[in-house]
Amino acid sequence: MNNNYAIGVFDSGMGGLTSVKELNELLPGEDIIYFGDTARIPYGSRSRETVLRYAREDVAFLLKHKIKMIIAACGTVSSVIGSEPLVDNMPFTGVLLPAAQAACAATKTGKIGVIGTPATIRSGSFGKAIKAIMPHAKVIGNACPLFVHLVENGYTARDCQITRLAAEEYLTPIKAEGVDTLILGCTHYPVIKDIIADIMGEGVKLISPGAEAAKYAQSCLMSADMLNEEGHVGKNTFYVSDSRELFEENAKHFLEHPVSGEVFSCNLGE
Amino acid sequence: MNNNYAIGVFDSGMGGLTSVKELNELLPGEDIIYFGDTARIPYGSRSRETVLRYAREDVAFLLKHKIKMIIAACGTVSSVIGSEPLVDNMPFTGVLLPAAQAACAATKTGKIGVIGTPATIRSGSFGKAIKAIMPHAKVIGNACPLFVHLVENGYTARDCQITRLAAEEYLTPIKAEGVDTLILGCTHYPVIKDIIADIMGEGVKLISPGAEAAKYAQSCLMSADMLNEEGHVGKNTFYVSDSRELFEENAKHFLEHPVSGEVFSCNLGE
Repeated sequence: MNNNYAIGVFDSGMGGLTSVKELNELLPGEDIIYFGDTARIPYGSRSRETVLRYAREDVAFLLKHKIKMIIAACGTVSSVIGSEPLVDNMPFTGVLLPAAQAACAATKTGKIGVIGTPATIRSGSFGKAIKAIMPHAKVIGNACPLFVHLVENGYTARDCQITRLAAEEYLTPIKAEGVDTLILGCTHYPVIKDIIADIMGEGVKLISPGAEAAKYAQSCLMSADMLNEEGHVGKNTFYVSDSRELFEENAKHFLEHPVSGEVFSCNLGE
Repeated sequence: MNNNYAIGVFDSGMGGLTSVKELNELLPGEDIIYFGDTARIPYGSRSRETVLRYAREDVAFLLKHKIKMIIAACGTVSSVIGSEPLVDNMPFTGVLLPAAQAACAATKTGKIGVIGTPATIRSGSFGKAIKAIMPHAKVIGNACPLFVHLVENGYTARDCQITRLAAEEYLTPIKAEGVDTLILGCTHYPVIKDIIADIMGEGVKLISPGAEAAKYAQSCLMSADMLNEEGHVGKNTFYVSDSRELFEENAKHFLEHPVSGEVFSCNLGE
């Protein structure tokens, strides 16, 4: 392992790009190797066993490349594994702990909302992580099974009535509890943060787990003296398990600009 | 191969159960072996190449069992393969041709609507199949990317506002063309047929591809003298690639009664 190796990032699909975007801004000298399992998305409606199996295969794929750290930029994977790392020979983080820490730092009332996929909410992991930091916190979770599909299919405009209706259904019970902080517990959700913010109201701070994981990676690499030493502008390389074309078509919604970097299609099953 | 072998049915998930339900009614003496690829659903938002790869793996799984016929009870698979069978040593049908034939028999005006997944509509297969039978037919297609997710996540009540809003968006352009027949080109869609019927209006005949494929299988087995000769009540056996529990929880929406038959979880990747 070498400081000039890349940071490996994976997600069930394109949600993890919200983390790549933040990494590019925070650590412009780092190379990123991204794997998006677009042939098997969504993870969040699957069983714990299937999510774990897929996550291990994703990590095995990244480990075939020259990487020095792995970020599981997927709320479902991060929740299902809890505080267990998926590798033991290099720095690793999911989005769970960085997001829980950010939420605890942000809340004033100790009432924190968590939204995520059914698998994430079923696991109760965000609640456990928050209570480990702030034992008296009140955590209110709600599953949002349609959000990942709405985002992946482009229903992301601020005035999209279908997404607003789904968001009202999912967020109203959380808002009624008077939370002042809301964890967007799936890396797809920041793409519709305007709609979520409109419904939650101005007083509620939204926590983006992909961005918090990127900040955590930055401090982790800095404190371990593992930053890239080449003094170059890092490059992104993307691997996806479905077609390149479908990826490039949608990735811009997550990156907020067209894909910069090479994109390759690969087949995990072969 | 033996007349007393089972009929093999597969789908990306649970949509094919609309076909199983019809087979149980039409051919109560037949055994059914069903495979639902619930660990990789949805197929309809994936590329042609990935859908083909998954379909071949599904067929290979069924061929490990004692079967005498295969039904691809998945609109996306049926569309992507067109008129090519996925096996050459036994009777095979997708849902494409049976649904196209039923639509051509039902239409009076020659204006036929088709709704399906993005992959199905992109393929144009239903339009080609209809025009091969009725060259002057006018076919109006529209992709409904959210429907499969709405159905798989239980947004199926007739008064569900989110599903109604999505259905209005997808169906209004088709209704405006004055179709008198609408193919529900994905085996998930019959579960929300009440909502679709409400929007399309009384004069429009809805064609359920899973049910049409079951009728085709009946006539195929009868004409080839391949019906089960044991004189027993056939049994259903279900295999799913994700967990049994998630399958049993949702399957009743498709079967309109609880699952009757054993359910096994299996892993295609191993």
